[in-house]
Amino acid sequence: MAMAVQMAKETVGQTNPNPSVAAIVVKDNQVVGVGVHVKAGEPHAEVHALRMAGRKAQEAEIYVTLEPCSHFGQTPPCAQAIIDARVKRVIIASHDPNPKVSGRGIQMMEQAGIEVKSEVLKREADQLNRAFFHFIKTKQPYVRLKSAMSLDGKIATSTGESQWITGEVARMDGHTYRHRSTAILVGINTVLMDNPKLTTRIEGEGKNPIRIVLDTHLRTPLSSRLIQNSEAPTWIFTGKGVYDDELEDFLRFPHVEIIRLESKRVEVEAVLNFLGERKLTSLLIEGGGTMADAFVRAGKVDETITYIAPKLIGGKQALTPVAGDGISSLKDVGAFQFISTEQLGEDIKIVSVKKEE
Amino acid sequence: MAMAVQMAKETVGQTNPNPSVAAIVVKDNQVVGVGVHVKAGEPHAEVHALRMAGRKAQEAEIYVTLEPCSHFGQTPPCAQAIIDARVKRVIIASHDPNPKVSGRGIQMMEQAGIEVKSEVLKREADQLNRAFFHFIKTKQPYVRLKSAMSLDGKIATSTGESQWITGEVARMDGHTYRHRSTAILVGINTVLMDNPKLTTRIEGEGKNPIRIVLDTHLRTPLSSRLIQNSEAPTWIFTGKGVYDDELEDFLRFPHVEIIRLESKRVEVEAVLNFLGERKLTSLLIEGGGTMADAFVRAGKVDETITYIAPKLIGGKQALTPVAGDGISSLKDVGAFQFISTEQLGEDIKIVSVKKEE
Repeated sequence: MAMAVQMAKETVGQTNPNPSVAAIVVKDNQVVGVGVHVKAGEPHAEVHALRMAGRKAQEAEIYVTLEPCSHFGQTPPCAQAIIDARVKRVIIASHDPNPKVSGRGIQMMEQAGIEVKSEVLKREADQLNRAFFHFIKTKQPYVRLKSAMSLDGKIATSTGESQWITGEVARMDGHTYRHRSTAILVGINTVLMDNPKLTTRIEGEGKNPIRIVLDTHLRTPLSSRLIQNSEAPTWIFTGKGVYDDELEDFLRFPHVEIIRLESKRVEVEAVLNFLGERKLTSLLIEGGGTMADAFVRAGKVDETITYIAPKLIGGKQALTPVAGDGISSLKDVGAFQFISTEQLGEDIKIVSVKKEE
Repeated sequence: MAMAVQMAKETVGQTNPNPSVAAIVVKDNQVVGVGVHVKAGEPHAEVHALRMAGRKAQEAEIYVTLEPCSHFGQTPPCAQAIIDARVKRVIIASHDPNPKVSGRGIQMMEQAGIEVKSEVLKREADQLNRAFFHFIKTKQPYVRLKSAMSLDGKIATSTGESQWITGEVARMDGHTYRHRSTAILVGINTVLMDNPKLTTRIEGEGKNPIRIVLDTHLRTPLSSRLIQNSEAPTWIFTGKGVYDDELEDFLRFPHVEIIRLESKRVEVEAVLNFLGERKLTSLLIEGGGTMADAFVRAGKVDETITYIAPKLIGGKQALTPVAGDGISSLKDVGAFQFISTEQLGEDIKIVSVKKEE
């Protein structure tokens, strides 16, 4: 199962809106089939593994990181495929996160006389698909907040110098989160000040996330990289006060979409609901202390990735990762829990997730 | 030697201005004598260990965490004591940090025909007496900056609420640094706002550090805890603009000393020089972002102890651990290196030290 979880990990970021899943068929202590789910619309991991095993699947065992599905979606139910292949035993890590169907796949297989063991390495497998599970439960994307700061909490000096506070290794690690996330979000101030491209720069084949700008008054310049560069879609959320003719110039760019909300200002909740409807399972927030603050105050940050450089910058006016109005009373501050700490080059990376209530 | 280093660790904080040292005498694979240096003016570790070993010291080996001294100070030279005891072999961790006498103790013993091995577990032993070594080299105390902040670098909410950001375990750990440090320093703003007592609250016998206030205009209230509570000395540094009659009221308190500097403002360099002359080997900075900034900009922070709570507070106006003017250009920011990271309750503790140039 550890091997299967490892295999599934390799596909994180490419299966949206589906989870990352891997399956291994074992017979007489030999691996006879392996499979991962590569991409939405393509066969599930179990199907690949069973296909590879062929006749050897009979009386074999199959390890799968997520409960095999029991319903017809874009592909037939995997639980049925396992039954048809006459597998003897199924070992499962995580249950299906959808409460409506959780356990049904297991039930189908047990009724067909197959021995099922579940919750093997559940914690590791759950962690793997944390974003997907969150999406299934809340119908909103899983929100990660990424920051790079000094040991005294600064993301820039008092004069605005910010390149670079953390080192190369940490910055490269940061790019893997763009690859892993379905979308990346910044505020209009970040667009105006930094003119970022927001594409993934990692070795090998980095997938670019959908680029999202929260921009109440549609101030994104046509000359900005997000408009001129078409490597990834750009979605701009505006308030209802933006006029039709203001949108026209943007129509020339097929990769750009303007989403005019019904409220005067762009609200976090409405944005997340829209992204959930579009089946975006995960969202990375990278730019702008005001933007980060809006998500923090809305209680919508699910995970934090913080890179800390061994430096003291100081400055009452120096920018910090979460700015805006902030939360005024400590009792209203949401609790997270640290899940990992690691040294990356000279910097430290700390990951925390929202604490379960 | 690991055992000796462990023993020496137990005395950190109580030997000022001397280093923490332990010695173990071993004969025929049996420990026949152990000693630590308990307090300045009392016998050194080697003397205690040799005394305990008595005659068994002859032809024995002695493990000592620091090179035995070669000079008469408040006690006779330990190198001579070792020679007189007819020890066969001496194993040393750190050399004497004073370049003028480093190696002399070893030389004395070698000339007397004793076999000497040095730099055994040097790194661990050096770490142990980092503050003492710094003091010997620079004649200024070793400065530790302690902060407790949220994951987004805030030490209080935007409305000033700060109790408590970190948890009980981290706060108790923080108190051990008061015990370990010769003095603790805060700015006048911290005195006016928080009225702290600055004593050590740890289980067992916590030693109180000397309490130091930087207070250019002598605004420390007579009613403040630092004046009313006499559990530890309070030293107040002022600028030269303070008049004699302003000092009078403070004379009633024998534990209070006012040090009027020759400059208009209280400067970090002058304070550290004064404390060095008074043989204070280590200084803990706890209170006030402006104060921390003054030490950061002067390049006088030698070690940082940072407790990070798994919380996002936000707020452009919320206080951060190092405030003031800050350093405006990243190229002028001094480099530190992380030496440890550990989880304390729900919080994380990160320690870094100034990078060697």
